[in-house]
Amino acid sequence: MQCPVARTLDHVGDWWSLLVIRDAMMGLSRFDEFRESLGISPTILSRRLKQLVESGILHRSVSSDPPVRVTYTLTERGHAFEPLLLFLHTFGNKHFLPEGETAVVVHGETGNSTDLRIVDRVSGRDASWPEFYLEPGPAANNLMHAKLSYAKGILDNR
Amino acid sequence: MQCPVARTLDHVGDWWSLLVIRDAMMGLSRFDEFRESLGISPTILSRRLKQLVESGILHRSVSSDPPVRVTYTLTERGHAFEPLLLFLHTFGNKHFLPEGETAVVVHGETGNSTDLRIVDRVSGRDASWPEFYLEPGPAANNLMHAKLSYAKGILDNR
Repeated sequence: MQCPVARTLDHVGDWWSLLVIRDAMMGLSRFDEFRESLGISPTILSRRLKQLVESGILHRSVSSDPPVRVTYTLTERGHAFEPLLLFLHTFGNKHFLPEGETAVVVHGETGNSTDLRIVDRVSGRDASWPEFYLEPGPAANNLMHAKLSYAKGILDNR
Repeated sequence: MQCPVARTLDHVGDWWSLLVIRDAMMGLSRFDEFRESLGISPTILSRRLKQLVESGILHRSVSSDPPVRVTYTLTERGHAFEPLLLFLHTFGNKHFLPEGETAVVVHGETGNSTDLRIVDRVSGRDASWPEFYLEPGPAANNLMHAKLSYAKGILDNR
């Protein structure tokens, strides 16, 4: 499975895992905190935490002094999800909260409201399809080449 | 469930659904095309397509002339996922493809490579946590207020 989207989803596991990452960003760190916040079964939560540790997204640490205290915090790779999660808040507010905004992204320094977008820093333009599209990278296999060339054919015929 | 991230995930359904949206962006439109691309069971694919239509992400149309031909295309809301999917390609390449990039985002007009980021168009800054953080919106309920105030307390004590 070569698609970078599929590969990301594979590591994150499922929706619950993304909400665990969201909670870790918000400062939760203990098993019981995650469980209370998410309202999921201990078994499912254990599995998700284990997978996130194995994928290098969460760091698990155990206190050296008693009482034993296990905490989960974001690794560097885990922190990389933070902009994505902020964007998903903006996105959710816009498309899936007909009753109004519930949690809005604010710029701390100024207190100003924000307008989060996915932007190409090279051209300065908003990343829209098909102005921006996909080409095979150096590690692309034959299937990936075929898929992207099929998509290119459809775009060219529009 | 008030969190805009959770609400988005709820509408998208699960990972398969996001890959269906990716395939629709790439130009696939028929049931068999999605099934072949994703390698999932017809039952699961039917359920996902139905949910995406109900969530207003895909539009289902049936040809008026025989042979009957059903196609699924992105609605306006569905197209809103395109920047997110482009970003997830960049993100996956960076974090989860140790063998190298497989599908890279290119700027069509110039053929230049890109640097996709999540940016606040108001301040022009990259959206990082906790420089950018969350505040209750007008539709926030008591639970959302409590969660965000808890997170604020943790940030203030860092």
